[in-house]
Amino acid sequence: MKQIHNDMRQIFGKAIEAARPVRTIHDILSCSEGMLTVSGKGPLLTYNLSGFSRILICGAGKASAAMARGVEEVLGDTVSGGIVVVKHGHTDTLSRTVIHEASHPVPDGSCVLGAQKIYECVAKAGKNDLVIALISGGGSSLLALPAGNITLDEKRTATDILLRSGASIHEMNTVRKHISDIKGGKLARAAYPAAVLVLVISDVVGDNLDVIASGPFSPDNSTYHEALEVITKYGLQESVPTAVMTHLTQGSLGNIPETPKPGDSVFENITSRIIASNIVSLEAAREEAVSLGYNTIILSSSIEGDTAETATWHAAILNEILASSHPLPRPCCILSGGETTVRVKGNGLGGRNMEFTLQMARHLRGKPDAAAGSIGTDGTDGPTDAAGAIADGGTVNRGNAINLNIDDFAARNDSYHYFDKLGDLIRTGPTNTNVMDVRAMIVR
Amino acid sequence: MKQIHNDMRQIFGKAIEAARPVRTIHDILSCSEGMLTVSGKGPLLTYNLSGFSRILICGAGKASAAMARGVEEVLGDTVSGGIVVVKHGHTDTLSRTVIHEASHPVPDGSCVLGAQKIYECVAKAGKNDLVIALISGGGSSLLALPAGNITLDEKRTATDILLRSGASIHEMNTVRKHISDIKGGKLARAAYPAAVLVLVISDVVGDNLDVIASGPFSPDNSTYHEALEVITKYGLQESVPTAVMTHLTQGSLGNIPETPKPGDSVFENITSRIIASNIVSLEAAREEAVSLGYNTIILSSSIEGDTAETATWHAAILNEILASSHPLPRPCCILSGGETTVRVKGNGLGGRNMEFTLQMARHLRGKPDAAAGSIGTDGTDGPTDAAGAIADGGTVNRGNAINLNIDDFAARNDSYHYFDKLGDLIRTGPTNTNVMDVRAMIVR
Repeated sequence: MKQIHNDMRQIFGKAIEAARPVRTIHDILSCSEGMLTVSGKGPLLTYNLSGFSRILICGAGKASAAMARGVEEVLGDTVSGGIVVVKHGHTDTLSRTVIHEASHPVPDGSCVLGAQKIYECVAKAGKNDLVIALISGGGSSLLALPAGNITLDEKRTATDILLRSGASIHEMNTVRKHISDIKGGKLARAAYPAAVLVLVISDVVGDNLDVIASGPFSPDNSTYHEALEVITKYGLQESVPTAVMTHLTQGSLGNIPETPKPGDSVFENITSRIIASNIVSLEAAREEAVSLGYNTIILSSSIEGDTAETATWHAAILNEILASSHPLPRPCCILSGGETTVRVKGNGLGGRNMEFTLQMARHLRGKPDAAAGSIGTDGTDGPTDAAGAIADGGTVNRGNAINLNIDDFAARNDSYHYFDKLGDLIRTGPTNTNVMDVRAMIVR
Repeated sequence: MKQIHNDMRQIFGKAIEAARPVRTIHDILSCSEGMLTVSGKGPLLTYNLSGFSRILICGAGKASAAMARGVEEVLGDTVSGGIVVVKHGHTDTLSRTVIHEASHPVPDGSCVLGAQKIYECVAKAGKNDLVIALISGGGSSLLALPAGNITLDEKRTATDILLRSGASIHEMNTVRKHISDIKGGKLARAAYPAAVLVLVISDVVGDNLDVIASGPFSPDNSTYHEALEVITKYGLQESVPTAVMTHLTQGSLGNIPETPKPGDSVFENITSRIIASNIVSLEAAREEAVSLGYNTIILSSSIEGDTAETATWHAAILNEILASSHPLPRPCCILSGGETTVRVKGNGLGGRNMEFTLQMARHLRGKPDAAAGSIGTDGTDGPTDAAGAIADGGTVNRGNAINLNIDDFAARNDSYHYFDKLGDLIRTGPTNTNVMDVRAMIVR
């Protein structure tokens, strides 16, 4: 069992490493004789730096300071300056880029100030400048710039009301993009005609550029009219602040410019590339598992839904491996990613990754040479100091031996304390990045 | 799209074919020069028929008449006689075995009579006789033989009360096996010391012999004491009929013999073999998909849980194939099996297979060269005349074009009429067998 734990920790380690901002930037960016090349998924991009007057860094998101360090290390003195807006504490050592710390997840004045600075930074870039934009999770709340006469409080109230109304995430975004001066491609419009290279760490299922950090450099397909329809659909005309309603109405009457649409000329000089994402981390995990001798598949990077149900069908696959060598013969490793939800019933401590692992421990009970685990790539699963946990066929009995009844811990959603006492937590410390979760099942 | 539909129908066809009783018996049983050989999963079994005075067929379940025909065709005149108990209408043409039709799924006197006849048939078999026992889904209700002084009504009442109490299926079975003279290995005890070859078509997740048809020829690990504990746990002492309580209490006091346990000598001459099951059908489907040129994996034969959630994570896998060629590169086929449940919200017509396909149609919308489908191997999905359905990336738009709004049909759980109008139902007719459901996703 020790071997299986070690292997799993190693596999998870590679998944996290592939999402670390500095390392990822170094993997993807290189500069030689004045030529900046960008590799990764998609065609090789080459920028002749001698063609630019200035190279500016701007960024927002939890990982943006670390990403900026990577860029500064690659480009050195050629960076003219810039600014990144990060969550309080997510700083790094930068020589040319200003770090602005702001509030997350609830935006306040520090976010408005940060957003204004970012806006100014890209707005002042001219057609001979190259802006390297660094986008990662958290960027949406960190860049709060209410449109028109809307105040931050009014913007926040509108968002809260929508959240409670049952609106889908797509409907939420339609409204949010139309009451912001940043989201939905507005930064692209501000930056035009500067060249912009957008490097993105994706923390959302599907890796859609218009969703990550609300797509400040991406075309938006939605309209003011649709935003108003969302408000009407959920009967929120009276509860949404007047300033928000007025802004959306004026927009739908054509009195305020729409968000830039696909094909708009403001996107002419913009190139975006996702440099880290769940599937990138899963592929790194897969490579490691293969090198450890496991037959390995990645099921999907976009697993959502209830955590316990996710564990149930993962267990069904594990049972099939034991019974009939499908989908893979042993020794094998099954990987999946995404972000599930937990229906909290108790007041215990844990997160979705440890909860998944706790449920798997019950399914695994008594099955030899089998293990399962899950980690949050940000290194903090729920409100805890651990990234996740590992369980195997002997976990439940080892727990029983020290008076830990797994059913009690499960009923309380107290996965953290269960695995803490067994010594089976995975602690990585905060990684200052996030590409959602990585799960693994191993059968030796 | 026509090709993808044709391929899927062919794959499903093979899955059903592998579960058809007559064909399966012929695949697995052969007789030559007085030697009966049994192939399939596990070691080759050989019976020297000249060593037996009589060969008796006994069986219960929806497929047992068809299984008996297969055995009669293989063994011809060497069959001395026997009896099979089937659901009304599930008959076949037999020359030496009596067919007893009985009520299903609610047992009545016809089941008690059938059970008595089966009991007598195996009880009269001596140590020089070979009993070929044919077990399939439905066998549990079809063989209703209340133990001791319990009446069929009292047995049924106890079962109904347990079902509504929230008892798990394992707890239900513990009680049922202790108020029956057939279930939980009691037929094995009746047959002893005759040689018994038990051929089984499994309709349960996990293919456990003690669960299929309540395990009439299988050891039972549960006790009268545990059966009483289940009653107490759910506070049913007062509501369960007195005769049932008396029987369980007498049993727990040691006044009535326990069900035969693992290692009991009554199992000495019994050999059981599962000849058809979900995984066997999935493997047949896989072979067909491979021969059609698809990279193919079987995820699991034991997928349970909510149908809509199952569709969601199947769609996540399909999206990953389209995005990153994981878990398999195109063209590929992903197979899974088991039996999901539907949370019925509307009063439409359908079953879990069509419901899965309806949900998949929404996930597939606009995705080219992709399709998904699901069938019940018994050929009747829910209360309909269809086995299942197929959806592809164009299904929703084809529906819209003839005024079928998929959201309306989904809200009503009216999957049958949706696919019927599109011509995308799969109709096989009743197959007289059941190895649960088979799902497939194809990306070309």
